[in-house]
Amino acid sequence: MADIEILNSEARTLTIVGTGLLGASLGLALRQAGYEGHRIGVGRRVRTVEQAADLGCIDEATTDLAEAAARSRLLVLATPVGRFSSLLEQLAAVRNENLIITDVGSTKVQVCESAKRLLEAPQRFVGAHPMAGSEQSGPDAARGDLFAGKPCVICAASDADSDAVELVEALWSVVGMQIVHLAAQQHDRAVAAISHLPHVLSATLVQSVELLGGWELASTGFRDATRLASSNPAMRADIMISNRQEILCALDNFSGQLVALRRILAVGNEADLVPFLEQQKRLRDRWLKQKGEDFQGGRRHES
Amino acid sequence: MADIEILNSEARTLTIVGTGLLGASLGLALRQAGYEGHRIGVGRRVRTVEQAADLGCIDEATTDLAEAAARSRLLVLATPVGRFSSLLEQLAAVRNENLIITDVGSTKVQVCESAKRLLEAPQRFVGAHPMAGSEQSGPDAARGDLFAGKPCVICAASDADSDAVELVEALWSVVGMQIVHLAAQQHDRAVAAISHLPHVLSATLVQSVELLGGWELASTGFRDATRLASSNPAMRADIMISNRQEILCALDNFSGQLVALRRILAVGNEADLVPFLEQQKRLRDRWLKQKGEDFQGGRRHES
Repeated sequence: MADIEILNSEARTLTIVGTGLLGASLGLALRQAGYEGHRIGVGRRVRTVEQAADLGCIDEATTDLAEAAARSRLLVLATPVGRFSSLLEQLAAVRNENLIITDVGSTKVQVCESAKRLLEAPQRFVGAHPMAGSEQSGPDAARGDLFAGKPCVICAASDADSDAVELVEALWSVVGMQIVHLAAQQHDRAVAAISHLPHVLSATLVQSVELLGGWELASTGFRDATRLASSNPAMRADIMISNRQEILCALDNFSGQLVALRRILAVGNEADLVPFLEQQKRLRDRWLKQKGEDFQGGRRHES
Repeated sequence: MADIEILNSEARTLTIVGTGLLGASLGLALRQAGYEGHRIGVGRRVRTVEQAADLGCIDEATTDLAEAAARSRLLVLATPVGRFSSLLEQLAAVRNENLIITDVGSTKVQVCESAKRLLEAPQRFVGAHPMAGSEQSGPDAARGDLFAGKPCVICAASDADSDAVELVEALWSVVGMQIVHLAAQQHDRAVAAISHLPHVLSATLVQSVELLGGWELASTGFRDATRLASSNPAMRADIMISNRQEILCALDNFSGQLVALRRILAVGNEADLVPFLEQQKRLRDRWLKQKGEDFQGGRRHES
């Protein structure tokens, strides 16, 4: 059975909690992909959730989480990760043994642990991280193609119900994502390295330039190296706090490597420095090549 | 008098030493801007310098530096910075009191000190850093518009001859650059912060991801944060060695800031983290706004 058929037959009613950029885009993408069921949007602020309904991202706007969960087959947590435990606590009180829960959080250990600890049927929870985003936020920035072609990491516990895993996979496949299965800790370690660490470095680099001077000479190289420093601070802080153990490990690894490079530079021998730089260039270029031509997009900016 | 008239009347013959990307592009840009004088290209490898002549970047190809310098009014060092002292030593032996020397080096303290120490008439040397480049190299990558609209930092010693400063300013203005005057040390400190430090961080970040894992999830944020790690290793090492004191200082400043941020993260209080991230975002966004719309180019990639 095609994924859209699974979704249409299994999840006649689904709830999206949080109708910001991700939640609203998911609602929109589902309809555009042929989802015929009923989409409930839940929000704390009536205005945001009604705006999402006006934009056609959801069919029904409410602030009553428990009531929406009680009549849904599938529920997607699409709020900041810092609110997940409190939402799962509320969901634990809902009597609906058919309910399957997933999320869109950028970190996975914390939400998977909360689900296990708080829910009565933790085997009905399947964590997900759809790796899509934009510099914009809010339902008016919603795009039906936000998820298309991007990876979605699914972190299913070993005792998760197979129908729950199947439905969550169908959900993200329907909106065009490529499913990747990882253990929650593996996921959090990987995103600490490839996303959270680069963000911390970008922000700290901006701080250093502010102290050392040089803004007037900064150009495209600096622009790209610091792009992540322009991310939404509240969103980033929320993610950083929830993944702080892995980020601290990644930071310590990075600092160790930086000390090693500093030592080579302090000695000042070009013949020691070149192989180090060649190795990093080779690794990055190999990765870039694997990602393909399209991905290189910004190439004209490389200098 | 317009800059092109100054150049045409004052520098009937000029020599470009090193006909790689920058040297060849300079020759090409000068002709396109209306320079009517004789352009000599000097190279160690006959093939590279003849290739530049075949491409119309220079009028004459030679490997004889002393002979070319003897009949030139203006000479531009466009080799890697690591070769500058040896070239200046050779130029010190040339009997041509009219000769004005400049360079294209990415660092300025070392070349200015070498000029002062080695040349008989150091007041005829005016250092320059045309801040233009490309991911490509070699004369076949030469572009007449490489310098247009970019800043060119000029580092003139306080006792430099005013006609030398004027001619060097005219040279870089003619190819469309915006002249910025800075003391050599100010320049080197600034580029350590905005160019060399980001490069070191990019390369080290690649190294960390290789050790920690996560390549399979890396996307546009990581691509941009590590773009500088794909720079030419030999070129980068050459520049790093020549600016290593300033880079070491910048690295130490950065590491200090990173420790401070690590401390905030280890405590794990979101309310302490957000203001830090907001401050960095504000600084970067303000700079980006000053640079103007065009500069933001890669904005669609921001996420």
